[in-house]
Amino acid sequence: MSDRVDDEETYYHVDGEVVARADATVSVDDRGFRYGDAAFETCRAYGGTVFRWERHRERLRETCETLGMADAVPGDLAARVDETLAANDLADAYVRVSVSRGVQPGKLTPAREVDPTVVVYVSPLPRGGVDGEPVWDDAAVVQSVATRRPPESVLPPGAKTHNYLNGILARLELRDGGASRSAESATEAPDSQADRSPDQPADEALQCDVEGRVAEGATSNLFFVDDGVLKTPAEGSILPGITREVVLELAREEALPVETGGYRLADLRSADEAFLTNTTWEVRPVASIDGVEIGGGEVTAVLRRRYRELVEARCYGEAPG
Amino acid sequence: MSDRVDDEETYYHVDGEVVARADATVSVDDRGFRYGDAAFETCRAYGGTVFRWERHRERLRETCETLGMADAVPGDLAARVDETLAANDLADAYVRVSVSRGVQPGKLTPAREVDPTVVVYVSPLPRGGVDGEPVWDDAAVVQSVATRRPPESVLPPGAKTHNYLNGILARLELRDGGASRSAESATEAPDSQADRSPDQPADEALQCDVEGRVAEGATSNLFFVDDGVLKTPAEGSILPGITREVVLELAREEALPVETGGYRLADLRSADEAFLTNTTWEVRPVASIDGVEIGGGEVTAVLRRRYRELVEARCYGEAPG
Repeated sequence: MSDRVDDEETYYHVDGEVVARADATVSVDDRGFRYGDAAFETCRAYGGTVFRWERHRERLRETCETLGMADAVPGDLAARVDETLAANDLADAYVRVSVSRGVQPGKLTPAREVDPTVVVYVSPLPRGGVDGEPVWDDAAVVQSVATRRPPESVLPPGAKTHNYLNGILARLELRDGGASRSAESATEAPDSQADRSPDQPADEALQCDVEGRVAEGATSNLFFVDDGVLKTPAEGSILPGITREVVLELAREEALPVETGGYRLADLRSADEAFLTNTTWEVRPVASIDGVEIGGGEVTAVLRRRYRELVEARCYGEAPG
Repeated sequence: MSDRVDDEETYYHVDGEVVARADATVSVDDRGFRYGDAAFETCRAYGGTVFRWERHRERLRETCETLGMADAVPGDLAARVDETLAANDLADAYVRVSVSRGVQPGKLTPAREVDPTVVVYVSPLPRGGVDGEPVWDDAAVVQSVATRRPPESVLPPGAKTHNYLNGILARLELRDGGASRSAESATEAPDSQADRSPDQPADEALQCDVEGRVAEGATSNLFFVDDGVLKTPAEGSILPGITREVVLELAREEALPVETGGYRLADLRSADEAFLTNTTWEVRPVASIDGVEIGGGEVTAVLRRRYRELVEARCYGEAPG
């Protein structure tokens, strides 16, 4: 555990205390480790302010409720985040908060009495807002994969939990040359569009639901623009991200026509623009999907700018807007 | 972390060393904690010998291979288990071995270079074999639940991983009064068979696959006997347990008619016998499913006895059989 970089310089918050990263541990009996029995949120701090904190906190509570531990989120979570940022002297940062069910007697069925393990992770990110630089280098290369998103009857899609193997298996298809196993080739006629070099793995794995409808990336939501209409997969098999929510609000403010629905991979081919959203990427244009070039465009640019302006106003502005 | 019982008396094995349970920790950055990105096996030691160790070890390797870390299982794992049993002065024990992908740079896509975190957990269990007592008190009360097993396209069913929330959600339905949401009421006409008292939650949650076929319990496989034929759900949406495998071998040795297939909950109503299998329970008769009394019987008794005899011969016998 001592060979990690920056251990001495990074501090996390574990179970109510700021600790050096090297000392930030959980019991091997913690249900978060044994079963992935934990909720989390990925947030982003801009100038010391966590953007959309109330929404992240509420979704964390909702996930905990889904997991049968509705009261597990501590009341002072915001203060713990602030303390962690301060301990690291960070204002612009990636912030992850995790709430696990903690240690319980050795049974799979959870006990009602919960002593949760609460962890706050931080790491530096560049300044955001109108003067910020994106945290990604280029528009995203997207590849569809065979691994499907779980249906609602298997895992509630809105719950953001430490059970993240489905997304990891999706990403492993990119890493280990899953091109031959793309969602398209699994369901429709195979073609050879996706002949990416193994040296250039895609940036994001696009997953369909078990019905073959486009769902989302392993860590992002997908939007595309078709004939002037902004489209994104409807809720159902997706984790509806908070960035997605903000983008939909901004699109309505801009009076852009918006449609949420069920789409096939083939529907993406004719897209005029496409972009991915998540908390750290914000709005990231899509260069291509399964080898078909798409790129950003006017709608993507407007929404990206509006998102950055919103961050600027809410987090860096003198008066909170 | 200091309020757990028996910390001073229990030793685990973490990353190559025997440590007191209170000191048995993993980094909060361990992917086992962050994502449930880990493989495990539950084994049982009888008289110091782990029953079917080679099969457990092989399945652990297979799970690691599915997770893209084929070489993560250490070559000396059996020695680590032996050391852990010795440190606790245990011969008859529950043994869990976990292999997580360990700490990696902060990306979801796994790095190829893996420094796995290997944990051996033990806790006392009664002697097994022909003189042993079961670790359960009574025949199992089984209740069907709405939470479905993941289809193969979502998570490979044969992989035994730390992503165990699906089973936990199934068990939570029992804990939190999910009777109103049983798999049957979700798919067929509701009836009031399952009016169990909330004080007496069922012992096991029976899950169907997304097609409505009976799959397995949250921690066990199901067998039933109908017209003299031993039946169990076929592989596909189930984790085919090693105890299930042994029971199928014993049934063939006993020349019992065996069928694996796709069954509905309604098919269980007419069962003459039913039992659950897993490593710790071995062969556990089923008292009832959704309020319909079933119970064990002759076939259950024969297989239970044969299993105990096999354990006796392999683990307690003078000469390995």
